[in-house]
Amino acid sequence: MPKSCCVAIVGATGAVGQEMLDVLRQRRFPLTSLRLFASPRSAGVQIPPERSPTGSMIRVEPLGDGCFRGVDVALFSAGGAISRQWCPVAAEAGAVVVDNSSAFRMDPGVPLVIPEVNPGALPAPRAAGIIANPNCSTIILMVAVHPLHVRYGVRRLVVSTYQAVSGAGAQAMEELREQTRAVLAGGAPEPRIFHEPCAFNLFSHNSAVDPRTGLNVEEQKMIAESRRLWAAHGGASVRLSATCVRVPVLRAHCESVNVTLEREVTLGEVRRTLEGAPGVRVVDDRAANRFPTPLRASGGDDVLVGRLRADPGQLADGADPEGPARGFDLFIAGDQLRKGAALNAVQIAEHMIV
Amino acid sequence: MPKSCCVAIVGATGAVGQEMLDVLRQRRFPLTSLRLFASPRSAGVQIPPERSPTGSMIRVEPLGDGCFRGVDVALFSAGGAISRQWCPVAAEAGAVVVDNSSAFRMDPGVPLVIPEVNPGALPAPRAAGIIANPNCSTIILMVAVHPLHVRYGVRRLVVSTYQAVSGAGAQAMEELREQTRAVLAGGAPEPRIFHEPCAFNLFSHNSAVDPRTGLNVEEQKMIAESRRLWAAHGGASVRLSATCVRVPVLRAHCESVNVTLEREVTLGEVRRTLEGAPGVRVVDDRAANRFPTPLRASGGDDVLVGRLRADPGQLADGADPEGPARGFDLFIAGDQLRKGAALNAVQIAEHMIV
Repeated sequence: MPKSCCVAIVGATGAVGQEMLDVLRQRRFPLTSLRLFASPRSAGVQIPPERSPTGSMIRVEPLGDGCFRGVDVALFSAGGAISRQWCPVAAEAGAVVVDNSSAFRMDPGVPLVIPEVNPGALPAPRAAGIIANPNCSTIILMVAVHPLHVRYGVRRLVVSTYQAVSGAGAQAMEELREQTRAVLAGGAPEPRIFHEPCAFNLFSHNSAVDPRTGLNVEEQKMIAESRRLWAAHGGASVRLSATCVRVPVLRAHCESVNVTLEREVTLGEVRRTLEGAPGVRVVDDRAANRFPTPLRASGGDDVLVGRLRADPGQLADGADPEGPARGFDLFIAGDQLRKGAALNAVQIAEHMIV
Repeated sequence: MPKSCCVAIVGATGAVGQEMLDVLRQRRFPLTSLRLFASPRSAGVQIPPERSPTGSMIRVEPLGDGCFRGVDVALFSAGGAISRQWCPVAAEAGAVVVDNSSAFRMDPGVPLVIPEVNPGALPAPRAAGIIANPNCSTIILMVAVHPLHVRYGVRRLVVSTYQAVSGAGAQAMEELREQTRAVLAGGAPEPRIFHEPCAFNLFSHNSAVDPRTGLNVEEQKMIAESRRLWAAHGGASVRLSATCVRVPVLRAHCESVNVTLEREVTLGEVRRTLEGAPGVRVVDDRAANRFPTPLRASGGDDVLVGRLRADPGQLADGADPEGPARGFDLFIAGDQLRKGAALNAVQIAEHMIV
């Protein structure tokens, strides 16, 4: 594969697909050509030159026999069913396939990768095959806590999420806007995409709940994928608790994270470690009450980390909160369409075309 | 004090004061008369008969010398400064004073009470003096976890909140509506009450952050008040972690709670205990993905509890999630203007006039 290459986006008209276009353009990804695929319904749509990473108009095509011929890198974000059917076809045709669906994430034959976390799991550059992009909430969590895990060992995480509706796609954003307008006008919200009203409301994540464990699919993903991403770092012994919740926010996920480390460190050390970590930006101004928010994270590449503090629940009463501690609390925010999806996929592609 | 008595509400025109009127009316509180007090700005406002618990129009008065003469029960919700000045005056005049501000909550001479949790801390019926109403988030948390503490012993709680803007008063609700209208119209939100935009956004709680511990005042209250409420139940040894967050919801707070118990119990036992607990309603339908939400809790008296499950982070891999466990996760929702404030205050008053 040449350094400059032919890239395909499958699901190009979706929320993540559109973000992939922006990320490729903004990062000046070395493209010889760009092919855009979507459902037959969206085929024929034109992407205007100003949005196109190649600078010229691109027409969206339907998937079909031989469509991946000559494609070096295929980025998939069109749902699990499309991925299960077409990722193997693209890989067979010789492409490096980065799949944003959950279809292959727990497949032992498919690497699951966040470049800041486990780049060592990537195959050799240019090797055709499928690489899975983790779940958005998982990526945002792991970018923030991996630097702590590497240095101090994470024993346990208790995570509660505040997830934007756009994780459920562009239609969900429209549903939030429409319902909100209706409520402000004195009307009632009409749920269509979500099972609960989303305007001025919040609810347990809209994925199915396992009748045996009580965990919803989003929580199952966060737990299983995090442990897999840390496979080379003792991930199987890390204990995770997750509660995933949708909030009436258009874009960017937040997570409240309580972490227990294997050994005692000071808050100062934790802060310095995070300040030096790739993909992380510390936003932690106690005096100004300025911390990570969805608006502050939206459209950016970094995972914002703040509310850094020793966990009083794991500190002896009267102990110095700046002294050595094993437990810490943090609040993080990340754009789940960018680092949580499109950016991570493009970063993987960048590693693979070196 | 007679069973039927003269009640005063101080802060009658505020969000909680208005809720106190509704709660007195709905519970048919035995009133001989009702006096309403507010700031000089609101004095003169008339409460119409249909909202009045006495069925007749009531005029709001300003506070002044001798204003508590003949008052048996005074319910305060007008901020800490008013409470510090006027609660002692009302108590001195012979009233049972229930104060919803934080002014006296940690005063060792003032009982802090949730009737479902520590009714034993109440003074003898009819005894003049001040009784403090806990913080709204604390009340909602404690109503849900106290039944577990009594039976199994709570060792540790990790709480992340999803708090409605109305906790900051009626003006904050208007700010959320106005900002949301502006954003939907393509404009920018203009923060006034809050330090961050609240439309389609969320942020760390708007109370001041302690520069030493990193805890904001809301988190400090939750930790200190919970331990005090459990003073007769070993509260000093319970470990609490709290992260308090404002979300763009008009009314009712939610909390994601991870609890570690002193001994192992089954999920079935936990569920049965909560189903039989006063002030609690279990809303936990895994198949329908139906759990506590702010809309479901709004206007109601109960704290809704759901997402009941064994914490996978405290369960051995492969262990039966229905078997004995020490760690559990739950998601709770409660109307912070009712049980979190007005209802709890009126319940205390009911106990005191028996």
